[in-house]
Amino acid sequence: MDNDLILLGHGSGGRLSHQLLDELIIPTLSGIPASGQNDAAILEHDGRRLAFTTDSYVVDPIFFPGGNIGDLAINGTVNDLAMVGAQPVAVSVGLIMEEGFSRSELAEILRSMRQAADRAGIVIAAGDTKVVPRGKADRIFINTSGIGFFRHGLEIGGANARVGDKILINGTIGDHGIAVMAKREGLALETDILSDCAPLNGLVEGLLEEGAAIHVLRDPTRGGVATTLKEIAIQSDVTVTLDEASLPMKGAVRGVCAVLGLDPLYVANEGKVLVFAAPEAAERVLERMKGHPFGRDAAIIGEVTDGIGGKVRMETLVGGMRAVEMLSGEQLPRIC
Amino acid sequence: MDNDLILLGHGSGGRLSHQLLDELIIPTLSGIPASGQNDAAILEHDGRRLAFTTDSYVVDPIFFPGGNIGDLAINGTVNDLAMVGAQPVAVSVGLIMEEGFSRSELAEILRSMRQAADRAGIVIAAGDTKVVPRGKADRIFINTSGIGFFRHGLEIGGANARVGDKILINGTIGDHGIAVMAKREGLALETDILSDCAPLNGLVEGLLEEGAAIHVLRDPTRGGVATTLKEIAIQSDVTVTLDEASLPMKGAVRGVCAVLGLDPLYVANEGKVLVFAAPEAAERVLERMKGHPFGRDAAIIGEVTDGIGGKVRMETLVGGMRAVEMLSGEQLPRIC
Repeated sequence: MDNDLILLGHGSGGRLSHQLLDELIIPTLSGIPASGQNDAAILEHDGRRLAFTTDSYVVDPIFFPGGNIGDLAINGTVNDLAMVGAQPVAVSVGLIMEEGFSRSELAEILRSMRQAADRAGIVIAAGDTKVVPRGKADRIFINTSGIGFFRHGLEIGGANARVGDKILINGTIGDHGIAVMAKREGLALETDILSDCAPLNGLVEGLLEEGAAIHVLRDPTRGGVATTLKEIAIQSDVTVTLDEASLPMKGAVRGVCAVLGLDPLYVANEGKVLVFAAPEAAERVLERMKGHPFGRDAAIIGEVTDGIGGKVRMETLVGGMRAVEMLSGEQLPRIC
Repeated sequence: MDNDLILLGHGSGGRLSHQLLDELIIPTLSGIPASGQNDAAILEHDGRRLAFTTDSYVVDPIFFPGGNIGDLAINGTVNDLAMVGAQPVAVSVGLIMEEGFSRSELAEILRSMRQAADRAGIVIAAGDTKVVPRGKADRIFINTSGIGFFRHGLEIGGANARVGDKILINGTIGDHGIAVMAKREGLALETDILSDCAPLNGLVEGLLEEGAAIHVLRDPTRGGVATTLKEIAIQSDVTVTLDEASLPMKGAVRGVCAVLGLDPLYVANEGKVLVFAAPEAAERVLERMKGHPFGRDAAIIGEVTDGIGGKVRMETLVGGMRAVEMLSGEQLPRIC
């Protein structure tokens, strides 16, 4: 293998992505230590904090059950801001289109973006449009960057997990990745699996009323729940123990994963948040989640236990204990 | 012509770009009126203003005399922030790479980005990396979004030009577009034409000491000086009169334009700013520009005159008066 080449796996969000980031991109661009990396950066402005984040979307196909590249891009950036506890305020939209792309499809995507922005209560404040010759891009790529403000002084981040914390998720895993995959592969399913693509800022705002009991928030997108938990375990230098039986999952997602040999723990979500909360607040956090439209299937799925730092393990359905590593290679390319 | 297709010209920054923006993109996404559109948006945070902007870079070739896609992307976003009078503070970097792209070329681009950021005095605060399969993108595309803060209460924008204003530019026109074009077409030139790619925040900061005498700042990138002046004439509802003899231009740029039938007035710049200043301050603004390394060849190139709103005209070298319109179609695709 030629080590000088960028591989699909470098964009997976998994192990190769982390290597490229840790060895090349982050040391060169910013030098921000791994422990300080979260879904959004935090800047100071006249003594007040603001959150700033960016994401590019290259999903294929651009229309899928439950959404399209447009609302995916808006919700994704809204969620990255919410994950550091910020209130999303404004996003920018950078469009890169291939010559010959359909103007009516563009219009539909833009309408979805506006609807998603309205739903999340944010404005689309800035934009840019580029067009490249036919064959030099794949229809449309969208970058959304975003700004959020803070209403509180809470410090939320991947390095804040503590032994004893309960780990919660607001619903079923794998829906987005499997929805995109099923559409792309033309799978004929009895019932459509819909992407879970949704803005989580409202749900998170409710959780933040628990104050300092909320230690970590992170959305398990590329790389799935497994990779995201591994990141947090490393950043906080703790062991995470998952309970497979507690993981909410739709039967149809379980079925597609079984047929295709995919592990749902590594499949992307676009409307889920992993919450690490102090144990005494965990039941209240669960109730708050269940009371929100995007949290009806919420569950406590694990806890932070004493043990080796950076380790994730799962109590399996059959009663064994399995080590969980980051996504290796690229299970599902171009999922977001 | 199929009206449903996106054309290269829709990304030119010229007439087709404005049509797509005005008819579809802006009404759908934000509804911001044309008169309020500037290089960066201005948001309020606890009563303080901040600037926010985004730009994607798809330049071909990615390495060109005087720069590469990396420093171009940093400087471009720094400049967009400076153009509303903000002090650039932080940028985000969104990378979209084609599978098989060279990791060593990536490293070189990232180093250029960091150098450009250091030179402009900003931090790279957030990032995202995506990889698409071979043939689904052209090597590398980069989005940079940026945040700037304000040290003053000045209102600078395209709608603020006034009759009597002098129009200045900080140096020669067309360098960037012709440098990229010459490299792409493999032109053998006696002396390399270098891109003018540079961060303009330092130069602009000096000009802002003239306070309310500075009415408009805008960088004539895609679409060139002609399209940018036309935008301002429309936004401010004034007539702009240019003096062709005063336009600073390198002989080599003039030569390449003559040979290839290009009009330098429509060629992109990446280190130039057009300044509309109150007449009584114009000479001082000119001296401030000339005292800065990126303004040695500065000149007063025109003025705002009484007349029909939205009109740009140029006194030509031979003494006639020529109407100047926006770039029509796509003179030079993928120039930034």
